[in-house]
Amino acid sequence: MTNTQACLITIGDELLIGQVIDTNSAWIAQQLNAEGIDVTKRIAVGDTDKDIRDVLDEEIPKADLVIITGGLGPTSDDITKPLLCDYFGGKLVVNERVRQHLLDIFARRNRPILERNMKQAEVPDNCTVLFNRMGTAPGMLFTKGEKRIISLPGVPFEMMNIMEHEVLPLLRKLATGEAIVHRTIFTAGEGESIIAEKILDIEAALPPHIKLAYLPNAGMVRLRLTGRSNDKKTLEQEVRQWQQQLAERLDNIVIALEDQSLQEILSNTLKTKKLTIGFAESCTGGCLGHYMTQVPGASEYFYGSMVCYQNHIKESVLGVKAGTLAEHGAVSAQTAIEMAQGAQRLLKADYTLSVTGMLGPFDEGVKSGKVWMAVAHGTGVITKDFTFHYDRARNKEMAVQMGMLLLWKVINGKL
Amino acid sequence: MTNTQACLITIGDELLIGQVIDTNSAWIAQQLNAEGIDVTKRIAVGDTDKDIRDVLDEEIPKADLVIITGGLGPTSDDITKPLLCDYFGGKLVVNERVRQHLLDIFARRNRPILERNMKQAEVPDNCTVLFNRMGTAPGMLFTKGEKRIISLPGVPFEMMNIMEHEVLPLLRKLATGEAIVHRTIFTAGEGESIIAEKILDIEAALPPHIKLAYLPNAGMVRLRLTGRSNDKKTLEQEVRQWQQQLAERLDNIVIALEDQSLQEILSNTLKTKKLTIGFAESCTGGCLGHYMTQVPGASEYFYGSMVCYQNHIKESVLGVKAGTLAEHGAVSAQTAIEMAQGAQRLLKADYTLSVTGMLGPFDEGVKSGKVWMAVAHGTGVITKDFTFHYDRARNKEMAVQMGMLLLWKVINGKL
Repeated sequence: MTNTQACLITIGDELLIGQVIDTNSAWIAQQLNAEGIDVTKRIAVGDTDKDIRDVLDEEIPKADLVIITGGLGPTSDDITKPLLCDYFGGKLVVNERVRQHLLDIFARRNRPILERNMKQAEVPDNCTVLFNRMGTAPGMLFTKGEKRIISLPGVPFEMMNIMEHEVLPLLRKLATGEAIVHRTIFTAGEGESIIAEKILDIEAALPPHIKLAYLPNAGMVRLRLTGRSNDKKTLEQEVRQWQQQLAERLDNIVIALEDQSLQEILSNTLKTKKLTIGFAESCTGGCLGHYMTQVPGASEYFYGSMVCYQNHIKESVLGVKAGTLAEHGAVSAQTAIEMAQGAQRLLKADYTLSVTGMLGPFDEGVKSGKVWMAVAHGTGVITKDFTFHYDRARNKEMAVQMGMLLLWKVINGKL
Repeated sequence: MTNTQACLITIGDELLIGQVIDTNSAWIAQQLNAEGIDVTKRIAVGDTDKDIRDVLDEEIPKADLVIITGGLGPTSDDITKPLLCDYFGGKLVVNERVRQHLLDIFARRNRPILERNMKQAEVPDNCTVLFNRMGTAPGMLFTKGEKRIISLPGVPFEMMNIMEHEVLPLLRKLATGEAIVHRTIFTAGEGESIIAEKILDIEAALPPHIKLAYLPNAGMVRLRLTGRSNDKKTLEQEVRQWQQQLAERLDNIVIALEDQSLQEILSNTLKTKKLTIGFAESCTGGCLGHYMTQVPGASEYFYGSMVCYQNHIKESVLGVKAGTLAEHGAVSAQTAIEMAQGAQRLLKADYTLSVTGMLGPFDEGVKSGKVWMAVAHGTGVITKDFTFHYDRARNKEMAVQMGMLLLWKVINGKL
């Protein structure tokens, strides 16, 4: 039996003019994949009646499951609900549970309830309502023969809540077909071409039901193995063995065998080794602290970060010497060292990392950003310099990733 | 004459399993839109020969322009180039300019050049090469009758560079049809339903060639007017007049009349008023500093941020009293006040903003995050508390946005 094939459709002009980035589809795809459902296509169309009907006409015959997000709000550019109602031949009727929920929400927020809000209690009589605990627009499930078409609000946390409480439990009941197993090898230090050469024979020996993909990003490469089989237990063992074989071959560049972010990997190391860290950030502007505190429980090992975006703050707060700045400049090994040591005095963490550099935009003739970093620990200090060739935003992302990697390497004695 | 209709196709399994978020499509859509090209559909498909061919068969007849990204790398999961070559009936031949460029890149990086890298110098003999200054995979332009099909690498800065230097100049030469003009009204303080009621009559009076969209995000709502006409100059005046009318009606909630981020709006205010700022961040972990330093030239007004993720750092670096923490807790008006005042002593900026709170994940029974903020200026200090109902990441984003908004309001005397 083949797996359920899903198509994701996102509705909204804002996606076609690039005013917002679609994060919903990636999240939905992850959830479906974990249930053994293949997403074969993702489509974004505008708030246009004909375009939406065309895409439904085209995609419903090809997929077993269609999940539509967006266009369910209370304003006039939200046309999805009446359109779907009509498309599947129903009419709008007030749903008592949704109506009561709306009245409760507005009473709780102490906001006036408008006619256009009460309209949200109307749902097609030919759908199953997917209750929205987090907001005012209910989700809807339509059935057409064996096919299921689901419509969800575009607001991410509302969509996620309906997926978790309504959609995924339903899909689990209907589940059929093969299991899908992913395993990742997270590497840093070589490009994808060199890695591909090193593992040529292993890649060639992979059985047809296990696929390898290369995902390069910000100076690191993730290798992803994806296996499919009816026998999930055997498949898990099998994919794990291939992962092990690749990891042994790539030994010195492997950072982790989980699909985790670098901040999660570094956090795990710090918790295991019971170490604490702090930062002195100049060009990264606080982004290192921001990434580390994305991980819940970061207060266990993350003390803080002194963001010193101006030289006089580097001097007055971190104790960088005026002479150092005058002689070597703010972007230098010496300044990085004094920043990291200043952060040690200020924060008293086991390891402190400093970052100082130029990320762009650059003046005429300058094409790349120079960044110096230092890691201080006890009386020791290590420095490293980087050159980034991209724009301001990407150079900052690179500096943050390379900073976390440097700290991870120093702490694990891998430098 | 109607506008060029474009379809964007992204290739890669990573998009269908949700391992990466597609930021390329939003950027490309913005660029095309600015040239008067309508993006009518965005599609993501996997690295599967049949799926890619099917989507080309379906979409090329409907669009004037198809832009494909991804699948051009040097590894075996990158199948786009030979597929397109075959689809349009060509064969692969070595391109001398690309070959020389590859040799130069590897020489400069002092890296060994592999057979699989040199393969990237092969291009279909039925395409126009779009030179890739920033990387190894060239872009390609195929022509089918009046239709143009463009293939670009998926690495964002490579794609952007080819778009800017090769694709957009070409599209400008071919440009026909109506001009598109967007104007935005950035509001904070009311939800989209209330706004819609307030401007009901204005929205109803809009001419058919001007459309209004509501884009709510993180406690703020952007209203976007989009006009289309053959007479760009008159259209610009017209859209501006409607924008003015809406802005007057919504007066007390309007933050800006540009489609800018809050960090850009705040930066403009600081530059105009020649003021400096600094932060004391607890729960936002450095994200406020990160956002402010996204704006080039931030060192003119942004001094720095003390990220104090632990109470003992709040005490030792910012001088928050142990008694205050013990009596009122870290999440309190009193702690926020002492943090903002401590940041004033430390950073000596005109205005300092402090943020302290709980963003989640929460223990059983706790459903929302409480955050206190304070703004200190001279001897004065203002506090404000917030309750956020979402998950850790979204609550952090809300806290950062509300922090910048609070600072903007205090500085502009709008609180």
